[in-house]
Amino acid sequence: MSRFWNTKTRQIEPYVAGEQPGNPSEWIKLNTNENPYPPSPAVTEAIMNELYAGTDMDSEKVGNRVLKVSNTVLREVGDVLRFYPNPDADDFLEAICERFSLRREQVFAGNGSDEILAFSFIAFWDRDRPVMAPAVSYSFYPVYADIFDIPLKRVPMTNGLEVDVDGIISGDGGVVIANPNAPTSVALTLHDIRRILDSRRNEVVLVDEAYIDYGGESAITLLPEYENLLVVRTLSKSYSLAGMRVGFAAGSPELIEGLRRVRDSFNSYPLDRLAIAAGAAAIRDIDYFEESREMVLSTRARTAAELCSLGFRMPDSSTNFLFVTHPDHAAKDIFMHLRERKMLVRYFNKPDIDNYLRITIGTDKEMDLLVSALKEILAEE
Amino acid sequence: MSRFWNTKTRQIEPYVAGEQPGNPSEWIKLNTNENPYPPSPAVTEAIMNELYAGTDMDSEKVGNRVLKVSNTVLREVGDVLRFYPNPDADDFLEAICERFSLRREQVFAGNGSDEILAFSFIAFWDRDRPVMAPAVSYSFYPVYADIFDIPLKRVPMTNGLEVDVDGIISGDGGVVIANPNAPTSVALTLHDIRRILDSRRNEVVLVDEAYIDYGGESAITLLPEYENLLVVRTLSKSYSLAGMRVGFAAGSPELIEGLRRVRDSFNSYPLDRLAIAAGAAAIRDIDYFEESREMVLSTRARTAAELCSLGFRMPDSSTNFLFVTHPDHAAKDIFMHLRERKMLVRYFNKPDIDNYLRITIGTDKEMDLLVSALKEILAEE
Repeated sequence: MSRFWNTKTRQIEPYVAGEQPGNPSEWIKLNTNENPYPPSPAVTEAIMNELYAGTDMDSEKVGNRVLKVSNTVLREVGDVLRFYPNPDADDFLEAICERFSLRREQVFAGNGSDEILAFSFIAFWDRDRPVMAPAVSYSFYPVYADIFDIPLKRVPMTNGLEVDVDGIISGDGGVVIANPNAPTSVALTLHDIRRILDSRRNEVVLVDEAYIDYGGESAITLLPEYENLLVVRTLSKSYSLAGMRVGFAAGSPELIEGLRRVRDSFNSYPLDRLAIAAGAAAIRDIDYFEESREMVLSTRARTAAELCSLGFRMPDSSTNFLFVTHPDHAAKDIFMHLRERKMLVRYFNKPDIDNYLRITIGTDKEMDLLVSALKEILAEE
Repeated sequence: MSRFWNTKTRQIEPYVAGEQPGNPSEWIKLNTNENPYPPSPAVTEAIMNELYAGTDMDSEKVGNRVLKVSNTVLREVGDVLRFYPNPDADDFLEAICERFSLRREQVFAGNGSDEILAFSFIAFWDRDRPVMAPAVSYSFYPVYADIFDIPLKRVPMTNGLEVDVDGIISGDGGVVIANPNAPTSVALTLHDIRRILDSRRNEVVLVDEAYIDYGGESAITLLPEYENLLVVRTLSKSYSLAGMRVGFAAGSPELIEGLRRVRDSFNSYPLDRLAIAAGAAAIRDIDYFEESREMVLSTRARTAAELCSLGFRMPDSSTNFLFVTHPDHAAKDIFMHLRERKMLVRYFNKPDIDNYLRITIGTDKEMDLLVSALKEILAEE
C-alpha cells in the first residue's frame, strides 16, 4: 500500500493472467488458449508491406511466402512507423465489415478485446446503472466492475456449471455474458441470447464471443434486430494473433459511438500500424482460418475421447479448450505434476471450479504428450 | 446521445487529435509532432527478428540493412505472434533501465504515453483527491480528469503563456505538468520542477516529458530524491515511433506498482510483440537517436530565424515544434491557406491560443517549402 494510491487502487484485486513463460517453445503451453498453429502467411506479408510502404518494392519468394524486398529504396524501410496510425484502424475494420456484412458505423477496433471490454464498462454502466454476469465466467469482468465502481451482480450457476438464463432474465441492469462461456467451455443457444436481449431492451447486453469460432452461433446475426446488443471478438484465439493484441466489437451505431467517445478520452490510437495490418490480413484469409480451425476441432474431439477414457469428466466443449475434472484426483495436484513436466494448463483456485483444469487444445502431438503424461500422473498418484 | 450511454459518456468532450490524412506522404505533415526521419534501422531488424523467432535464420544484406531470411524454416515465419506478449514488455523495459540507469521496479511500459497518462489518472487521483495542471497544456489532461471524475484545477498562465510555478506551489493536490510544455514549446528549469515536487511531498507530481529530448533537463535525475515523482515519456517523437505506440514511465517503485495494479485491471498485455521489439531496439540505438535529434535541432534554429524574419513571433522552443503567432495575420487564416497547399499545421480553436499555430519541425526541405508558402500567403492576405 502506498500513500500515493487513491482509495480504488488500494482496494482493487487485479486480474491475474495465465503464466507466460519466457521462452514459450520450451513448454507445452496449454494454459492461455493460444492457437497451436501460426497466423496466416498473409499476416507476415502484410506486416512486411507496411514496413516497406512508400519504398520501391520488388517481390521475392522466400521459402513458401512472398516477401517484399527493396532494390532501390526511395523511403527507408520502416519509415511509415514515424507516422501515427489510423485512429479507427480503418483497414482492419474494412476487412471486418466485408467478412461479417456489417457497416462501418457498426464496428470498433481495440487493443485486444480486453480493452474493448474495459471501454464498455466505462461507457455503458456506472454506480447507478449496474450490470449482471454469470458467477463462473471470465474473471476479468468483476475486476472491470470494481475499478470503474459499477455494482456487478454475479448470477449463480445452475445444474453444475450452467449459465442461469432465467436468473439473468428475471434481473435488471446491463448484462455481460461470454458465449461460449469460459472457463466452462459451454455455449448458450442463440434462442437464449435472444431471450436475454428481449428482457432488457433499454440496457446493453454485451456478448463476449472470444471462443465463438469453435462452437455456438454468433449473435452478430441478431444485430439488425437489437440496438442493445454489443458483440465483442478477439483475434487472439482462432486467428493466432494473441501476440498482436487485436480485437473488435460489432453493435448498433449508438453503442459503437459510445465506445469511440470513451476511446477518444483515453488513447486516440489504440492499435499500432503493424497490428492493424496484421488484423486485416488475418481476417481476409478465410481459407487459412477455416483450415486451422478444423484442425483444432478435430484434435479437440480426439483429446476429449482420450481424457474420458482416463476417467476425466467434462462438458461438451464449444471452445478451443476442455474444462475437465477427475473424480479420484485433485485438479491442483494434476496441475502441479504437469508443470513439473513443463506442461502448462490453467488451474483456478476459486470457489466452484477449484477441482477443474482448463486445457487448451494444442497440436495432435502436444495432446498425445499431454495424455501420456496424465496416464503416468494418474498411475503414480 | 443514446439511452445506452451512462451519464459520463453523455457529458464527456473527447480529445481531438491532429488530423491523420489517409496517405501521409501526399502532405507536408507538420501537425502532430511526428519525426521527419525514419526510426533506427535497428527497429526494422528487431521486428524481423521477432517475426523469425524460433525459425532457422540466415542473415542477408538488403539495401543498407541486415534482414533475417530463413532458408530452412523450422517454425513458420510469424509463428511467435500466436503467443501472448510479455505482459511487462520486459525487453523494452530492460533497454530503458540500461539507458537511463534505472532499476526494473522503477519503470513501466504503456501503449503510447497516453495510456500511461490515463492509468495515472485512474491510479492516483479521484473525486476526493484532485489534481492541478497549467491552463494551457496538453489538452488531453482535462479529458482524463473529466472521464475519471477527478476535479482538475487549471492554473492560469502568467506573462503571456508561461506556466505559473508559484501558482502551482501555492495550491494543493496532485500535479500534471508537461515539460517542455505543449503547445507553448517552453521548458521549465529543473529548479522549478524541484520546487513543485517539494511543495507536495505526499501527492504525485506527474512530469510529462514527451518533448524533453529537444530541450530542457529531464526530471529522471531527481528520482532518487522524490518518491512522489512520475516521469512519463513517449517514443512517438524523438524515436520516430508514433506508428508503434510505445511509451514508458519512470518513478518510485510504489508509483510504478500503482500503475501495474491499474493496468492489470484494464488490459494485461498493452504492448504487442512487435511494439516491444521496436521500442527496445529504438532505445538501444543511441547513436542514431542523437544523429536524428541533432538534425531536428539544427532545422529548428534555421526555421525559427526565417519565420521571425517574416514577422512571426514565438517563444524559444525546447521542443520539435514552434508555437508561432503573427501580429498582422490571423492564425486560423494562415492555417486554412496552408491546408489548401497540402501543408498541415496545428491550429487550436481555444481561448488564449486561438491566434497561434503549432508547427512541427520537418526536414530542411519541408521547412523551406513551408517558409515559401508562408511568404506567399502573407503577401496575398
